Amino acid sequence: MTEPLFDKIALIGIGLIGSSLARVIRRENLAHEIAIATRSQDTLDRARELELGDIYTTDMAEGVRDADLVIVSVPVGSSGDVAEQIAPALKAGAIVTDVGSTKGSVIAQMAPFIPHGVHFIPGHPLAGTEKSGPDAGFADLFQNRWCIFTPLPDTDPQALEKLSEFWRRCGSNIDTMDPEHHDKVLAIVSHLPHIIAYNIVGTADDLQTVTKSEVIKYSASGFRDFTRLAASDPTMWRDVCLHNRDAILEMLARFSEDLAFLQRAIRWGDGDKLFDLFTRTRAVRRSIIEAGQEIDAPDFGRKSVETTPKK
Amino acid sequence: MTEPLFDKIALIGIGLIGSSLARVIRRENLAHEIAIATRSQDTLDRARELELGDIYTTDMAEGVRDADLVIVSVPVGSSGDVAEQIAPALKAGAIVTDVGSTKGSVIAQMAPFIPHGVHFIPGHPLAGTEKSGPDAGFADLFQNRWCIFTPLPDTDPQALEKLSEFWRRCGSNIDTMDPEHHDKVLAIVSHLPHIIAYNIVGTADDLQTVTKSEVIKYSASGFRDFTRLAASDPTMWRDVCLHNRDAILEMLARFSEDLAFLQRAIRWGDGDKLFDLFTRTRAVRRSIIEAGQEIDAPDFGRKSVETTPKK
Repeated sequence: MTEPLFDKIALIGIGLIGSSLARVIRRENLAHEIAIATRSQDTLDRARELELGDIYTTDMAEGVRDADLVIVSVPVGSSGDVAEQIAPALKAGAIVTDVGSTKGSVIAQMAPFIPHGVHFIPGHPLAGTEKSGPDAGFADLFQNRWCIFTPLPDTDPQALEKLSEFWRRCGSNIDTMDPEHHDKVLAIVSHLPHIIAYNIVGTADDLQTVTKSEVIKYSASGFRDFTRLAASDPTMWRDVCLHNRDAILEMLARFSEDLAFLQRAIRWGDGDKLFDLFTRTRAVRRSIIEAGQEIDAPDFGRKSVETTPKK
Repeated sequence: MTEPLFDKIALIGIGLIGSSLARVIRRENLAHEIAIATRSQDTLDRARELELGDIYTTDMAEGVRDADLVIVSVPVGSSGDVAEQIAPALKAGAIVTDVGSTKGSVIAQMAPFIPHGVHFIPGHPLAGTEKSGPDAGFADLFQNRWCIFTPLPDTDPQALEKLSEFWRRCGSNIDTMDPEHHDKVLAIVSHLPHIIAYNIVGTADDLQTVTKSEVIKYSASGFRDFTRLAASDPTMWRDVCLHNRDAILEMLARFSEDLAFLQRAIRWGDGDKLFDLFTRTRAVRRSIIEAGQEIDAPDFGRKSVETTPKK
């Protein structure tokens, strides 16, 4: 077993991401000691029951004391508050990172509080499921996923390399880009898909001509795919929408423009336009499978839903 | 083993649905003889290599001769052509059904050609994957899925019961509704989700600020879910769009109206509206899981994508 990378790691927030980190840190022996800090006493108690760490506290400053690495895993709208609370207790030379889905806003909220001599390296592991809370985490969550850093101009290369090594040992591949570009990329690959999924599930839920029970009963014909993203954590996604507003609005405008074009092709019976689009999109999935970011099995390899015994 | 339900079943079209039927008919011993008819010689040759039937022909009329049950599994836009070709060869007392995703249009296309004394019972098994062609089929495709019949007013109850028994033995649950209602239900649970998926994948493919390789690389953060539906058969979906136009346009209008509302909430920073919607949609997925139409495992139970060996 290799030596731990850090003496003490502090996890601020212990939901899906934080608790997955706790598990992989333990499994890969990445720290001597794990401190867990979260605002909610119930969540903290649950983390303790799950034996996710060594130190448990609802006091953020207490949590980060003497930590060499601090990972903030909270909804992006809470980043500023957390930074303000932990700032006075941060150890000189410590690395502070986060896992937020928006980077421009997180930097604007956190950077002003980070003391000189502490390395603030904004990060974003592109990993998750529709589940949330400390029970939802698992050590393999980051396996073969990308972790994107958006380093500030004065970032210390050694600190960045150490944090990169940490994420590599968690199973991730590393990329860096500037925060503004990150927020545009995520707006299309993650934020727009979630918003569209939330929207279509809302539309179906509001219909009068088709009942809710019909929507649920017949959902396997396509609709249920969208319900996974639309079951994601509401607080997290409210904050993403509020904190990556401009990039999201731009992608929404493009989406709506394209949809108007498609709608017109349907209205006027332009089969060639439809066929062309439907052919082009098929190739995109093929590329994703070839890039190792999706499995090739039909229907996501979903196991058949359990059935009542056959007569 | 129970006695076969039918002496001879003719399968017109041998793609994902037709070839799944061939496999389950064999496994469950539902017919003495399976005839396969398809326009394309290549597809027919492949069906023969896969040993999906007993009789193989590119002549539709030849295929249905002496058949007790004829199942038409072709893109809905070809239904009328098929009906015209098979009509003269249909046996008195035979049952003719289809598997098309739109019912009003299929009935309008096929019913005029069906001779007196032949039972035409439009049907739609709500089952499929994003794969197509004779290799894509599997015997379990219909297991625990719904098969919806939209019987005509003069449908013979005994023929309907016999066809229902056939689908039950294929693993399906049976429902009946009128064609117009079917087309509305499917517009929201299936057609709109596919169209939205095609559209968002098209939007992502067209961007300049974010490259295609970035979209592919980071797709696991949400986008890749949509690529599954958007990889469905282009001919089938072109025809669905053209043949359920009014119901689809209505659902698209509602979707766009809701999206404008959501977009406005994002623009004006109305977090409460966003949180309310995102909470409500979570409950919909829970209901689908409880209804046995989806698995509860995170991320559709996707097995982690294979990774390069860890160092």
